[in-house]
Amino acid sequence: MGVEIERKFLVKNDSWRSHVESHAHLLQGYLSRDANLTVRVRLTGSAAYLTIKGMTSGISRSEYEYPIPVEDAQAMLRDLAVSPLIDKTRYRVRCGTHLWDLDLFAGENEGLVMAEVELRSEDETFEMPEWAGEEVTGDPRYYNANLARYPFKHW
Amino acid sequence: MGVEIERKFLVKNDSWRSHVESHAHLLQGYLSRDANLTVRVRLTGSAAYLTIKGMTSGISRSEYEYPIPVEDAQAMLRDLAVSPLIDKTRYRVRCGTHLWDLDLFAGENEGLVMAEVELRSEDETFEMPEWAGEEVTGDPRYYNANLARYPFKHW
Repeated sequence: MGVEIERKFLVKNDSWRSHVESHAHLLQGYLSRDANLTVRVRLTGSAAYLTIKGMTSGISRSEYEYPIPVEDAQAMLRDLAVSPLIDKTRYRVRCGTHLWDLDLFAGENEGLVMAEVELRSEDETFEMPEWAGEEVTGDPRYYNANLARYPFKHW
Repeated sequence: MGVEIERKFLVKNDSWRSHVESHAHLLQGYLSRDANLTVRVRLTGSAAYLTIKGMTSGISRSEYEYPIPVEDAQAMLRDLAVSPLIDKTRYRVRCGTHLWDLDLFAGENEGLVMAEVELRSEDETFEMPEWAGEEVTGDPRYYNANLARYPFKHW
């Protein structure tokens, strides 16, 4: 169990590309249509995870994540997930002392590029990358669960 | 992953008590209010499980179950579950070649005694126990997820 604190920003230019430390392809889907509960299945390479997140309180959420068999993840994404699935490449991008997760979306969310930084407390400071644009932390349209229901291409 | 096929019956007398092979106390809660998805947390002694079940199709459902840390289960039951929790003692009761799960409910569902038998296929035969009463397999009121929302005592 943990509490996740993160801030999210749109990405306004390509200058992040020279600070990439690693990247991975992610396919993820959401099983619950309940607004108070997120049940996410994520498949990345040869690993898969089931994640439960509780209701949002400020920018903190309770989060529980467990590794699951890849075949289970494939079956749940096929049979139980809201469509379309979220298909994105996640880049780990360095800025000062923080490693950001920068997501380049494909499929129904192509054109969206969004980055987030995880913080240890709600008031921890961080260096703002020069590629970071508008902050969208509180905007529900940008929740991945909502991008599965109302993809960016259809906005 | 597996597909669960089970038939459920009310229990009409106490004659099952002489056929008990084991029993365990179960505390379980449901995290999802989505009718198409069951997310169950079950705590029994020193073990805990997270179970995901998909939409019902006939008497078969896809089911995925994972062991999770007891502290996670306790926190999820406290913070994320629909109240009241399901509190019951599960008895394993022999009848012929089948072992039944017989649930004696407590708390808000006290007075309800229900038994189920798991089958390998929808047409597998089984001996009907003389303590078995009305079949309630298809009746949504008896789903544990619904007993958490509309407990038996308030029927």
